[in-house]
Amino acid sequence: ANIVTLPGDGVGPEVTAAAVAVLDAVAAHYDHHFHFEEHLIGGCAIDATGEPLPAASLDACKAADAVLLGAVGGPKWSDPSAPVRPEQGLLALRAALGVYANLRPLQVHPALAALSPLKNEKLHNVDVLFVRELTGGAYFGAKTRTIDTATDECKYTVAEVERVTRRAFQLARERRKHVTSVDKANVLETSRLWRSTVQRVAAEFPDVKLEHQLVDSMAMLLLTQPGKYDVVVTENLFGDILTDEAAALAGSLGLLPSASLGEAKAGLYEPIHGSAPDIAGQGVANPTGAILSAAMLLRHSLGLEQEAATVEAAVADVLEHGPHTRDIGGSAGTQAVLEAVLAAID
Amino acid sequence: ANIVTLPGDGVGPEVTAAAVAVLDAVAAHYDHHFHFEEHLIGGCAIDATGEPLPAASLDACKAADAVLLGAVGGPKWSDPSAPVRPEQGLLALRAALGVYANLRPLQVHPALAALSPLKNEKLHNVDVLFVRELTGGAYFGAKTRTIDTATDECKYTVAEVERVTRRAFQLARERRKHVTSVDKANVLETSRLWRSTVQRVAAEFPDVKLEHQLVDSMAMLLLTQPGKYDVVVTENLFGDILTDEAAALAGSLGLLPSASLGEAKAGLYEPIHGSAPDIAGQGVANPTGAILSAAMLLRHSLGLEQEAATVEAAVADVLEHGPHTRDIGGSAGTQAVLEAVLAAID
Ligand SMILES: CC(C)[C@H](C(=O)O)[C@@H](O)C(=O)O
Ligand SMILES: CC(C)[C@H](C(=O)O)[C@@H](O)C(=O)O
Repeated sequence: ANIVTLPGDGVGPEVTAAAVAVLDAVAAHYDHHFHFEEHLIGGCAIDATGEPLPAASLDACKAADAVLLGAVGGPKWSDPSAPVRPEQGLLALRAALGVYANLRPLQVHPALAALSPLKNEKLHNVDVLFVRELTGGAYFGAKTRTIDTATDECKYTVAEVERVTRRAFQLARERRKHVTSVDKANVLETSRLWRSTVQRVAAEFPDVKLEHQLVDSMAMLLLTQPGKYDVVVTENLFGDILTDEAAALAGSLGLLPSASLGEAKAGLYEPIHGSAPDIAGQGVANPTGAILSAAMLLRHSLGLEQEAATVEAAVADVLEHGPHTRDIGGSAGTQAVLEAVLAAID
Repeated sequence: ANIVTLPGDGVGPEVTAAAVAVLDAVAAHYDHHFHFEEHLIGGCAIDATGEPLPAASLDACKAADAVLLGAVGGPKWSDPSAPVRPEQGLLALRAALGVYANLRPLQVHPALAALSPLKNEKLHNVDVLFVRELTGGAYFGAKTRTIDTATDECKYTVAEVERVTRRAFQLARERRKHVTSVDKANVLETSRLWRSTVQRVAAEFPDVKLEHQLVDSMAMLLLTQPGKYDVVVTENLFGDILTDEAAALAGSLGLLPSASLGEAKAGLYEPIHGSAPDIAGQGVANPTGAILSAAMLLRHSLGLEQEAATVEAAVADVLEHGPHTRDIGGSAGTQAVLEAVLAAID
């Protein structure tokens, strides 16, 4: 299999290297062959080529079986009004790969419950899979700007809503068979289209229960009854906000992975944490989110379910027994955690 | 003073009646005269007149010194695709009164910390005032719909951002002198206009510290460091989501008030809870949010600061010593809580 790595900025290279080491160990253990090809994206790409997503990077990603990304951005490129910005590379990549379904699983490991801002009793059975629409909505709509006015258009087509909703229902079938669709149908026209389309798709999945929630209520319910939700599907911007809110429950952003999938085989895998410039280059970043993203890559792009489960079990073992990085209350470095995960795989 | 009441639907009439009783007690105690005039809004207005905001209601609100609202909506009118819906009355009223700044204070009463989903140590010093822009953005932008496409336009002008930002800075001056402005400037054009405008307004308030946060980060920070924030200003939809998320921290929605202010004197005051159809008509709704909204009315529309503080102290006393309604772990009814608040005022 052909895997493109896009380490990016800040701690991106450190955590990506750890995830690659885990994939190498899986290849050795199960006798697979993974070929890695590294490319530029984000701030480092701007510095080297003037563009956040150089054509060589994009072409390689399109030809790959899967793409493993670290993080983009940092203080050097942080002016949101600059004409060229690191995040543009990420958004362009998502669009070009057509990865419309962003999967963000959330579980709270019992050994880390003390790190969560939520009370322990709220954390029982928290196991949510967010499916965020990733290539539509206000992120990619028309924008205008004059000296005294700005606009963003949020646009959705029925086809865009259908495909991400189908993916959510398919995933729910393999889980607890419950989909919660989140919108703001009492105010937004796109949300009314969203809701009626989801309702129609649900009829194809009579074995899965569907519930609608308004985004403001959902922001509250994620805190008051987080254990109640199975698969949560929503549009791009609502998903951005709700998945970060939910991520806070896990105790550290460094723990959480994501997978972005489309119709093509080449999925995009990245930890949900950012480039964390304050700790970049020190060898202390938590590699867990990146390693679990590699597990999702094994599962969703390479069809290697057993291998994915092996990596996840190894990570769970290390979360339970340590070593732990600083963000989760330990003092170990990236390398020590990686070595413990590698040892648990063998 | 001339106060229009809009009890609305569900528990709206019960909690509005309690708030009016408190205002009557304040009038008697301080020798003021308040004149109340009741009008229709929401589902009950649709049933009676076919319209969610009849002209008679709107005219009365425009002529009033202040408007006290209960709640709108309920299962009878809950189809988001129906041509006439209760929420339209509320949105039309906000627009017609020009109440562009929605103030939502959040404090967590120590006696109720056990009800919060957040760990106790996170709740120390939580005292946030959200200032949500209320008459712009995607709520009021152009909408289109065809058989297979829908759009919502989010639009902001510099003038709209300036006025709500100034209000936020003025309020911060009376508090801990810290403003956090929330946007999504790495993706949205309206957020870039928002950020640069806020930055410019901040120069008028050199004694107030300004910080920018992205909305996704803020959704997380509200859980991990809620005690850090003083005044949080943001656009309409982000404010809708973040204030509901924050409200979960207080333990019950029934506790929280809001004030919506514009240039005109007539502010709009309402508890942040909804119509709660499941408990409507049973005399068990928590009147606290409505009573604290009446306190905000005294302060912001009538300029009666001492009277407002008296009501707030009475409510704090009842929260500490009871009686408590069911939503906050007690078994008292609306009337018992009201009587305790009235007794604490005298
Ligand atoms: C970096 C930013 C553009 C991005 C987004 O908003 O989608 C990030 O927050 C994410 O959630 O992946
Ligand atoms: C009822 C609804 C239209 C309203 C809003 O979204 O503004 C409510 O959620 C609120 O926050 O006051």
